[in-house]
Amino acid sequence: MKNSVTGKPFQTARLTKMWDWMAQEGLSLVMFEDSEANRDQSIRWLCGHPGDALLFLSVDRKSVLVPWDTNLANAYARADAIIPYTEFGRRQIDAMKGVIAFLKVPHGAKIGIPPATPYPQFLNIVGELTDFDIICREKCAAAYARQLRAIKDDDEIKIIRQAAEITNELIDLLEKRIRGEKIKTEADAALCIELEARKRGCDGTAFETLAAGPQRSFCIHAFPAWTGEPFAGQGLSILDFGVKLHGYNTDVTVTFIRDPKPQQEKIVSHVEKAYQLAVAMTENNVPVRKLALAVDLQLERYKKAMPHALGHSIGLEEHEYPVIKVCETNDLVLEKGMFFSLEPGLYDSVYGGCRLENDFLMGESGPELLTNARIIYL
Amino acid sequence: MKNSVTGKPFQTARLTKMWDWMAQEGLSLVMFEDSEANRDQSIRWLCGHPGDALLFLSVDRKSVLVPWDTNLANAYARADAIIPYTEFGRRQIDAMKGVIAFLKVPHGAKIGIPPATPYPQFLNIVGELTDFDIICREKCAAAYARQLRAIKDDDEIKIIRQAAEITNELIDLLEKRIRGEKIKTEADAALCIELEARKRGCDGTAFETLAAGPQRSFCIHAFPAWTGEPFAGQGLSILDFGVKLHGYNTDVTVTFIRDPKPQQEKIVSHVEKAYQLAVAMTENNVPVRKLALAVDLQLERYKKAMPHALGHSIGLEEHEYPVIKVCETNDLVLEKGMFFSLEPGLYDSVYGGCRLENDFLMGESGPELLTNARIIYL
Repeated sequence: MKNSVTGKPFQTARLTKMWDWMAQEGLSLVMFEDSEANRDQSIRWLCGHPGDALLFLSVDRKSVLVPWDTNLANAYARADAIIPYTEFGRRQIDAMKGVIAFLKVPHGAKIGIPPATPYPQFLNIVGELTDFDIICREKCAAAYARQLRAIKDDDEIKIIRQAAEITNELIDLLEKRIRGEKIKTEADAALCIELEARKRGCDGTAFETLAAGPQRSFCIHAFPAWTGEPFAGQGLSILDFGVKLHGYNTDVTVTFIRDPKPQQEKIVSHVEKAYQLAVAMTENNVPVRKLALAVDLQLERYKKAMPHALGHSIGLEEHEYPVIKVCETNDLVLEKGMFFSLEPGLYDSVYGGCRLENDFLMGESGPELLTNARIIYL
Repeated sequence: MKNSVTGKPFQTARLTKMWDWMAQEGLSLVMFEDSEANRDQSIRWLCGHPGDALLFLSVDRKSVLVPWDTNLANAYARADAIIPYTEFGRRQIDAMKGVIAFLKVPHGAKIGIPPATPYPQFLNIVGELTDFDIICREKCAAAYARQLRAIKDDDEIKIIRQAAEITNELIDLLEKRIRGEKIKTEADAALCIELEARKRGCDGTAFETLAAGPQRSFCIHAFPAWTGEPFAGQGLSILDFGVKLHGYNTDVTVTFIRDPKPQQEKIVSHVEKAYQLAVAMTENNVPVRKLALAVDLQLERYKKAMPHALGHSIGLEEHEYPVIKVCETNDLVLEKGMFFSLEPGLYDSVYGGCRLENDFLMGESGPELLTNARIIYL
C-alpha cells in the first residue's frame, strides 16, 4: 500500500519515537484527532491518511486509524487496523470505547487525548470512561508529534526543496506576466497560481491566495482573498501565496510597487530593513523571541508596529510550531532541520501595505534561503 | 461605518437577543473567539468583522471587539470599542483582563468563554482570573448565537436567494461547457467556478471546489480537491462546490454520468431514491434524526451505507448547526427560516461515487428548493 508522503511502506521511525515517548510518560493509549473542529496533520505524518480521522497509538506498538472516509484510508493510510468511523455511529467517545476494547487497554490505564479537546467534551469523556485515567494537557502526544515534526527529515526536505523551486518558478512567472500586462487583476494573479502550481505537480495551493491590489493592501489578510479588482497599479500590491506538494507547503509574499508616493516608499523601506535585520540575526539556535523582539524594536524606532508575528514554521500545515513571535517562551530556538518563514509587514489604512516573506531551512551553519520572494518595483 | 452583511449600521436586533439571554443566564460578560484554532462566524454575524478577533459582550449592553487586524475592523466592524489585539501582546488571557478592566466588570461576576476552549487553556484562564466565575459549557453564548443564526432573517434570506441564483447559473454553465467539451479536466471545472462566481459578485467560493473525475470519485471528499485529471469521462464524476456572497454560502453537488456500467447505474439509482425519500419527508418541524434514519434504513435495504451525514445547515459557515444526522439529539427539527442541504451519497472503491446535494429554505408550509443541482447524464 502506498504512503502519500515518501512512497515508503510505513513511517516506522516516526511511530517508534511516539511509542518510546508513550512508554516514558506511562501512557497506554493516545488519541489524535483531525476534524473540521480540530485540524492536526500529525495523523497524516504518522500514517499517511490525509483526511478527517482519529488515530490511536497504543504503548504495545499498535496503531488504529478511525477514518471518516474508508476508501480514502485504504488508498493512502497504513495502520495495524482501519475501522470506519461509521462503525461507532460517528461519535468520538464511542470510537474511544471501541478502540479501547479492540486493543484490550487495561482498566486504570492512562489515556492521552488531544490538548485541543474542548473543556465540555473533556468532561463528557471523563464521565463516560470512568475506568480510565484521562490525560488532557498541553505537554501531550500531539505536542510531542508537533515538536518532532518541527525538525524535517531527509524525505521531507527533498519535497520541501521541490516545493520551493516551484514557488520560485511561479514568482518569476508572475513578475513576467505582470510586467507584460498579461496579469491585470487580482483574479488573473490568483488563477495563474492555481493553474500553474498544479501543472507543476502540486496538490494545489497551500492556502487561499491573497491578492490585494493597491486599494485593498491595507489589510494583513486581504478580505475577500482576491477579487476582480486591478492588481499592481499605482501604489502597493500584496501577493501572498504558497504551493502544496505531497502535503508540504510553502508560504511567500511578494509586494509589487508602482509609481510610489513618498509615504509608500517609506513603508517599503521600513519593511525591507526589518527583513534584512531578521535575516541577518537568523542563525542556528537563535531564540525566536530574540528575533521577533529585535524587529519590533527597530520598527518602534520608526514609530511603526507590526500587527502580526515575524514568522512561523511551515510543513504539512501552513502555520506550524514554533511561531516566531515575542510571546513565545524564551527557550524556543530555530534548530537545524526547521523550515520557517520570515514575513515582516506594515499596513497603512491610506497608503496600503507591504509584506516581504521568504522561506528558510535551518542548516548546520545557518539558514538557507529557499525561496525568492522580493519587493518588485514596476 | 458600513456593515458587511446588510448595509445597515448595526446588528442591534441580534445583539439585543444576546444581551437579553445574558441577563437571563446571569452572565456579566461573554467572549467569542474567531481564530485559526477556533472558527466562529458569530463575530461577523454580530458586529460585521469578518476576520480573526475576540468579541466581548457585557450585560450592560456594550460590545468590545479585539481584532487581529485593526484596519480590517475599521473598514467592516461596529462595536462600542475596538481595541487592537497587539495591545494585549496577542495573548488571549491578557485581552480578557484588559477588557474586564475597560468595562469595569465587577469582581465575582460570571464570565462565559467559548465552549471550544481547550481544557488546558480553560485551566490557565481559571488560574489567572481567580476573581471571576469562569463558565465554559456547551449551553453557552456561542451555542445560543449558533441557534439564533440557524433561523435566517429577511436580510439574510435575500442574500441567500441571490447566492442560490448564482449557483444555479454556474451549474447550467458547467453543464453546457462540459457538453461542449470546453471543460475537459477537473482543473477546467474548478477554475471556471472560481472565475465565474467572482464575475457575478461573489466573495469567492464557499470552500475548495471538489472536482473528482471517474478515477477519483470513490472518496467522499476528493483528495486532492482537484487536479489536471480528466473530468466527466466514462463513469461517475463528482463536482461539489458552493459560492460565498456577502459571507453567505451555498453548497451543491452535481454528479456527471457517462456510459455507465450496470454497477454505476445502480449506485446512481440508490442515491436518487435516497434523495427523493429525503425530500419527500422534509417538512416543517420534521426531526432531523427521523430524516437521516429513514435514508439510512432505505440504503440498508440495498445493503449500502452512507459514510456521512444526510445534510447540514448553511449560512456564514458552510456547515452550520444543526447537522441532519442520526446521532443528533431527538428534539432538533427543521424550522421555518432554516437554510440547509440534503446530500445523500454512495462511494465505491472500484466504480466510483455519486452524490446529489441541493439547498433548501424551510418555509411556513414546507421546504423550498433553492438550487438546481442534479444527476447529469452525458
